[in-house]
This record gives sequence, structure tokens and C-alpha cells, in this order.
Amino acid sequence: MTTILIAGVAVIDFVFSVDHMPRLPEKYRARDAAIVGGGCAANAAVAVARQGGTARLASRLGRDRVGDMIIADLEDEGVDCSLCRRFEGGRSSFSSVFVDTGGDRQIVNFRDETISFDAQWLDQIVPNEFDAVLADTRWPEGASSVLTAARNNSRPGVLDAEAPLRGSEEAIRLASHVAFSAQGLRDFTGQEDLQAGLTAAADQTEAWLCVTDGEAGVAWLDDGAFATFPAFEVNAVDTLGAGDVWHGAFALGLGEGQTETEAIRFASAVAAIKCTRFGGRSGVPDRQETEAFLKEFK
Amino acid sequence: MTTILIAGVAVIDFVFSVDHMPRLPEKYRARDAAIVGGGCAANAAVAVARQGGTARLASRLGRDRVGDMIIADLEDEGVDCSLCRRFEGGRSSFSSVFVDTGGDRQIVNFRDETISFDAQWLDQIVPNEFDAVLADTRWPEGASSVLTAARNNSRPGVLDAEAPLRGSEEAIRLASHVAFSAQGLRDFTGQEDLQAGLTAAADQTEAWLCVTDGEAGVAWLDDGAFATFPAFEVNAVDTLGAGDVWHGAFALGLGEGQTETEAIRFASAVAAIKCTRFGGRSGVPDRQETEAFLKEFK
Repeated sequence: MTTILIAGVAVIDFVFSVDHMPRLPEKYRARDAAIVGGGCAANAAVAVARQGGTARLASRLGRDRVGDMIIADLEDEGVDCSLCRRFEGGRSSFSSVFVDTGGDRQIVNFRDETISFDAQWLDQIVPNEFDAVLADTRWPEGASSVLTAARNNSRPGVLDAEAPLRGSEEAIRLASHVAFSAQGLRDFTGQEDLQAGLTAAADQTEAWLCVTDGEAGVAWLDDGAFATFPAFEVNAVDTLGAGDVWHGAFALGLGEGQTETEAIRFASAVAAIKCTRFGGRSGVPDRQETEAFLKEFK
Repeated sequence: MTTILIAGVAVIDFVFSVDHMPRLPEKYRARDAAIVGGGCAANAAVAVARQGGTARLASRLGRDRVGDMIIADLEDEGVDCSLCRRFEGGRSSFSSVFVDTGGDRQIVNFRDETISFDAQWLDQIVPNEFDAVLADTRWPEGASSVLTAARNNSRPGVLDAEAPLRGSEEAIRLASHVAFSAQGLRDFTGQEDLQAGLTAAADQTEAWLCVTDGEAGVAWLDDGAFATFPAFEVNAVDTLGAGDVWHGAFALGLGEGQTETEAIRFASAVAAIKCTRFGGRSGVPDRQETEAFLKEFK
């Protein structure tokens, strides 16, 4: 089985479905609610597991009840959490997410800034047996740790380059593949135009570069040429976590030996199916669904 | 030890401290956050336990992770949860609470309406050994069950009469003591003026009647005469759950054999101290603090 080593954040989202976005200091009743795991790296790990890969997640969590929920949920998904570290006295991240009937979202996030970002503990236990690496920019030290392991073992090392990118300069240098979000690429290069941004970014790193832009699809540099892959046209009802899921599937594709172009198509299918279902990453399909979808859209 | 039997709701509040109340469908960062148990009956049970009583709580919860958190938190407080029933497939209640720097609150609550309100299972296990009963109006069938037990055992039976009171008519008839909130009394009688409201309510029940009105203190009917007890003057920073805590301490006072007037003074002290600390019911004092406070304010 293909093993993907992933470093970054894992959180819990308390998602409330509301008729209208609450605006006043009053009491509101939610129509429905869901407690859904979230966080870039954790969402990617779930996508890897559901697509038939082995996902090993390294993350910083508090030794608290929220952390227990986060780990239990990931383990239910088959994600290997043995590289997650629980910090005594630390508090795990959680968010309140309101989704109104128009699909608009409001997110209020809590993050414990007292949990150390240091990743020397991860350097000491990071495995050498894996097929690809994925890291997010929410924990730059962890990203550097696993991307160094990818280099040392000559495996693909993918960075999910979401803004803000300040602090992730080393991770960008270490990655073999940098997949920017549109906002991440603009933040990194100061260029509004994505093609100009990719060209500007190519001056600063030797990594393979692409940018994901939601419904607009994916653009990348193919030996200096600008190539694009349009997103699959689906009836999107929930885009929460779609980018994270894309990154997980893309890293899995590379780990399985797919070319970048094949992995883009594969990841775009997994993310597209996810968007057709409510409930964040709970809508990630399994491998069979993805294969059927790809056959249909051939 | 004095035992108080309590029926009603138990929830978890995810409380976010924010600079300004979020109003737009955007991403916000909380300054701080706390996961605090809540719910009228559960808050009252914690107040009883911290004041040295034995609190036995009957409540309806889902057999889910939120329910596990609610029970674990209450058991940490020494509350006896053996009368709580967990419903397979049911989802426990939780809320998102935003508190801004001005102390304003916005609450979005989720409640699973599919969990049965029926309390026949409680009738079958309700104990006969207790010193007083307390019930809230969020579970009228449970209130009737424990207030019937209070009648059968000639013990005080207190109803925390919060609006809406529709559905709690039987509980009001069964209670020996009805403690209205100002909103609850207005909802029950249609009278804006609280003195007129108490007089009107007295025509509909033989119970001892009072109304709690936050900073304005407590008013009650003393053999037809209108009596008042002003709230203790404190620097209130968080009034979340203050009413629930008041009711728990009041029921404990009656269970200990205090007169109504003594129990009002005692409960008002416990609630006042709670309001001087941030974090909902986590600010409830212990008995020693309450005694010291009462000595000082003599």
C-alpha cells in the first residue's frame, strides 16, 4: 500500500446550519449541526485513507478532550496518528462554523499559541519508509522536517502553499512540488495574475509548481509552458476542505507513481465529488467512486 | 449530606472570546476560547455539588462524543449522573457562544428534536431518598416526574420557571416552589409589572412564588405581601448561567432546612460570586467562599 507522510494541523469544526447568518448579540436556534474534523493536513490524511493509501499524520495537539475527539475521529477514518504529539496543558484547536442557506460561511477559530512550533521531536521519529510527503504551511517547522525526509529518501515532497507563507520559506526550498492556492501564490509573489505569479515563483525555487483556483481549476508550469486543467463541472453544495482533499489526493497520486498531470486529474475528481455533499471532509469519496467518476468524465 | 434531585437539560457551550461580534461571512480569530458545560439543570447541579450537597441529575443525552464530554465534565464536578439516559442515535445539545469585550453575547444552539421527551423511564427509577427537588422547563415531562416524587415524599419541589412555559402547566401545579425568571413570569401571566405578575400567578397555583430579576434582585410573595431582596453589589464580568446557579443553591438551601428567605440570601451570594469570574459555571464558588462572602455582607 502506498504510504503518505503528512505534517500540519488537525482541528475540530462545530458546524451550525442557520437560516440567516447571526448578526446580533441574541439567541439563535440552528436548523442542524455537525461536528466535523478539519484542518489542512488532517483533511488531506482522510482523503489519502479513503482513496486506499496509508496516511501517517504528524500534528501538534493538546492533551485535552478536544484533542481526544480529533484523534478518535481520524483513527475511525483509518489515519495513523502515531506521529501526533499531545502537549500537556496545551489546548487543541477548534472552530465555530456557521453555514447559511445561501452557502455563505462564517468561521471563528481558536488556536492555542502556547503550544510549541518546534519540530525537533518529529525529526527524531520521522520514518524513512513512505512513498510521498505532504505538508501544510500552518506548521512550517513540521513541514521542513517531513520535506527533509522526502529529500533524504528521494521521494516527492508536496507543500500545500496556503497564505500566509511567511515562515515557510525553508519549506518552499525543500519541497519538490509546491501547490499554491490562488491566495497563497499572490501572497508569495505579489502578482495578481496567476500565470505571472507562477513564472515569478519559478525564479525562487526549483520545485515543480502549480496553483489551484477552485472552480477555475488548476494551472501549472510544464517545462516553462503554462498548462491548465479545468475543474470538473459538478453541482457544488459544500466546498469546505475541498483544497485540502485535493492536496491529499495529489500527493497520493504522486506516491503511486502517477505523473503530475495524472495526479492533477485524479485529485480534481476526488475534490469535485466531495463538493457535491454537505459536511466538510465527511463527503470525501472512496477509490471506487473516484474511478467510476473518472471513467464517466473520460 | 443533603441530596438534591434535579431534572432538565445538560449541554456543552463552545465559548469564544472575540474583540467584536462577527457579522460577516468571513474568517475570524478568537482571542481566547473555553469549552464549558451548560444547561439549566446541569449548571444547578454543579452549584449544589460545589456548595457541599449531593446532586443527582436526570437528563436526556445522545450516546455520542458530545454526550461523553458533558457527562465526564459533570462527574469531574462530583455530580451523580446515574439518572441520565443516553439515547442511541440521538445527538447531545451544544452551542456556540461568542462573547465580545463589551460583555455582549451571541448564542447559536443546536438541539436534537428527535430525542424523546417522554419520562416514563425516569418514573420507574426515580429515587425516594432526597431532601429537595429542582426541575427546569426545558424538559416538562422530566419536571413532572421529579416534582411528583417530591410531593410523594413531602419534600420541597422547586421549578425553575424560565420562558417559554407552554407545556410546563402540570409542573407548575406540582411544584411547591416556583421561581420565575422575569421573562418567565411575564410569559406566564402577560403582566409586564413583576408585582402584578406574582399576584396574578398566585391565582393559578398554591405554590410559594418568587421572581429573580438579575441585578434587580429577587421578589416574592410573603403571605400575600410583596417582599424583595436586592442582589449583592459585585463587579459582574460574566452572568452566563447565574440564574441556573441561583436555582441550584436555592434548592439546596431548602433541602438543608433553610427558610425561603434564608435560601434566597444564600443563593444570591453564590450567584453573585459566580458573576465576578469569567467562564460560565466554572466560576461557581465553594461553600467556604460563600460563607465568607455572607459574613462580610452581613
